[in-house]
Amino acid sequence: KKNKNMRLIDLSIGDVSLPLPSSCIDGIDNAKKLLANKETFTGYPPSTGHTFLKEEIIKNDYNTRGIDFSNEEVFISDSSKSDITNILDLFKDNLCVALQNPVYPVYVDSNILKGNKIIYITDIETFLPPICKVDLIYLCFPNNPTGKIISKETLKKYVDYATKNNALILFDSAYEAFIQQEDTVHSIYEIDGAKNVAIEFRSYSKTAGFTPIRLAYCIVPKQIVIESTNGTKISLNSAFKRLKDTKYNGPSFLSEYAIYNTYTTNKLCELRENISYYLNNVKLLTEFFDSKNMIECISINSPYVWIKTINNLSSWDFFYYMLDNFMILGTPGSGFGTYGDGYFRLTGFSSYEDTLEAINRMKKVL
Amino acid sequence: KKNKNMRLIDLSIGDVSLPLPSSCIDGIDNAKKLLANKETFTGYPPSTGHTFLKEEIIKNDYNTRGIDFSNEEVFISDSSKSDITNILDLFKDNLCVALQNPVYPVYVDSNILKGNKIIYITDIETFLPPICKVDLIYLCFPNNPTGKIISKETLKKYVDYATKNNALILFDSAYEAFIQQEDTVHSIYEIDGAKNVAIEFRSYSKTAGFTPIRLAYCIVPKQIVIESTNGTKISLNSAFKRLKDTKYNGPSFLSEYAIYNTYTTNKLCELRENISYYLNNVKLLTEFFDSKNMIECISINSPYVWIKTINNLSSWDFFYYMLDNFMILGTPGSGFGTYGDGYFRLTGFSSYEDTLEAINRMKKVL
Repeated sequence: KKNKNMRLIDLSIGDVSLPLPSSCIDGIDNAKKLLANKETFTGYPPSTGHTFLKEEIIKNDYNTRGIDFSNEEVFISDSSKSDITNILDLFKDNLCVALQNPVYPVYVDSNILKGNKIIYITDIETFLPPICKVDLIYLCFPNNPTGKIISKETLKKYVDYATKNNALILFDSAYEAFIQQEDTVHSIYEIDGAKNVAIEFRSYSKTAGFTPIRLAYCIVPKQIVIESTNGTKISLNSAFKRLKDTKYNGPSFLSEYAIYNTYTTNKLCELRENISYYLNNVKLLTEFFDSKNMIECISINSPYVWIKTINNLSSWDFFYYMLDNFMILGTPGSGFGTYGDGYFRLTGFSSYEDTLEAINRMKKVL
Repeated sequence: KKNKNMRLIDLSIGDVSLPLPSSCIDGIDNAKKLLANKETFTGYPPSTGHTFLKEEIIKNDYNTRGIDFSNEEVFISDSSKSDITNILDLFKDNLCVALQNPVYPVYVDSNILKGNKIIYITDIETFLPPICKVDLIYLCFPNNPTGKIISKETLKKYVDYATKNNALILFDSAYEAFIQQEDTVHSIYEIDGAKNVAIEFRSYSKTAGFTPIRLAYCIVPKQIVIESTNGTKISLNSAFKRLKDTKYNGPSFLSEYAIYNTYTTNKLCELRENISYYLNNVKLLTEFFDSKNMIECISINSPYVWIKTINNLSSWDFFYYMLDNFMILGTPGSGFGTYGDGYFRLTGFSSYEDTLEAINRMKKVL
């Protein structure tokens, strides 16, 4: 009410604002034409997605980094969120899982639903052999919300730990397309031995602006073995395929074709242009907050700016401070876990104009 | 090999073959344009789907039958299969569930995954108070695979049973658009009291030929109360919304807009034309098998023809008989449960030409 003459600027959203790239729009148009004709109409997709797209994923996203998979190791779906949560159905209850803190809250909620014991990785470098045997380790790099990346050396330690302790790593690389630094990994499979102990989740939501049209994939290498409830060893890949067949009917042909067209017409540059746009917003925000000494660790590899609140305000007090004074919305860090309190997340997903305007408003007071 | 000169005719598929109706194609085109422009772009859908479509669903699918819901009672998703299986997360393990037999195998598999006790309804009319208290009752009408419908009187008995015994009915009306008879229900909510004890699943897969583009919805009335694991009463609607927020990011805008355009341009007649095409195939098959006394119960309300095998062959022996002699694929009834053995399912989803050709091949021998 106080600020009724000031327009609200939303820098809280983890959602894209640029329209779909033209190669994706063309792909939708092509798919639409195929579905409009009896001769080219195709019905249910396979529960793990169409082979035509799997082949492009392997070729463009993995072969380019010297990694290879068979089509059966790629599971295309509408959403990483669904995959990350549903895969827990394959495991016993009462597991011990290690999660980063702060972290994407979906990992927490889905494990609470299963009654799993959660221990937190508060410092990725010094995470010691835990008090209980860890069965699952969730890693998200570049991290949401902190934007932090992981070095190859550190990630290798996790892969080695998982190998030695029979743990499974769930590697969420939803933001890999935002990576600018050379000294990190785009995929956990750049680490030797990872194919035996890690599955990887990727999404087109932020990479290609697919939030409205839903598409993601996950890699489950064939050599990963898990223990079934009766103690026998089974292939995680086969078990996940069985779960997919039981609970899922596959992703939309329209969304698959949208990104298929981008791959096959060599238009990944269009996706990169959009990402550069968001990263430029991040850069502007980062420079501003860094000049105010509110940034502990500068990140150039994610769409998020993770700042320390001023005057030791709690996350929520700072939320209202930002709203009351500048009519700017952000996300309280405490929403990402206890270690997020005293922090605040802003995103680069707004427009360039709104990002500039937000900085100008804050300049006058902060 | 024996039949290498004979083309295989697939009457096993539960999948549509006609292209998407033109009003849906136009809807996809409109949505595509909205997503191609910054001013009209919209990102993540709500986890239960967009209000613009919920309003049309209530208006067209329910208000026309004197039933009303609020938008919050409609949950739009990519797939009934996902909803039917994922909703089990909300309940304790080791429930007692009642399933029809023969039945859609997904109900069975998802309950086995949860460790639930399954008892079978082999005769819908004479299903007696079961040996254990039934917590969940799955009903699918028109039924897959038998094509049977249920009378209002019988369905009322199930609603009354559920009311009295604190059970929940999961009513799958995936095939309601195929109903030709007057003396049955399109929705369980045509029965008094059902809003307190029943949720309903519908899909656009068969209704609008959406198998490639994935869209479904389910109705969870607000007044349904379930017991949480600690014994407190909670609203199933709120719990399901919470589950959706945790595990799902909503349906595709393209698919929502496809059917939205059909509703708003009054083109539901296009959908009915496609359904009539499939039902005509069913009629041709039904007349043929009825003339051979292979049909126990004629159905005019589903895309399926459920036949008794000849010479008391098992379902699989009859499968090979059909393949060896006529190069016709069908689905062995035993795949739908023990009471399906000795039966065989054929579908009307093939083309008119293939349906005729199949009948001509069989005429010569059967």
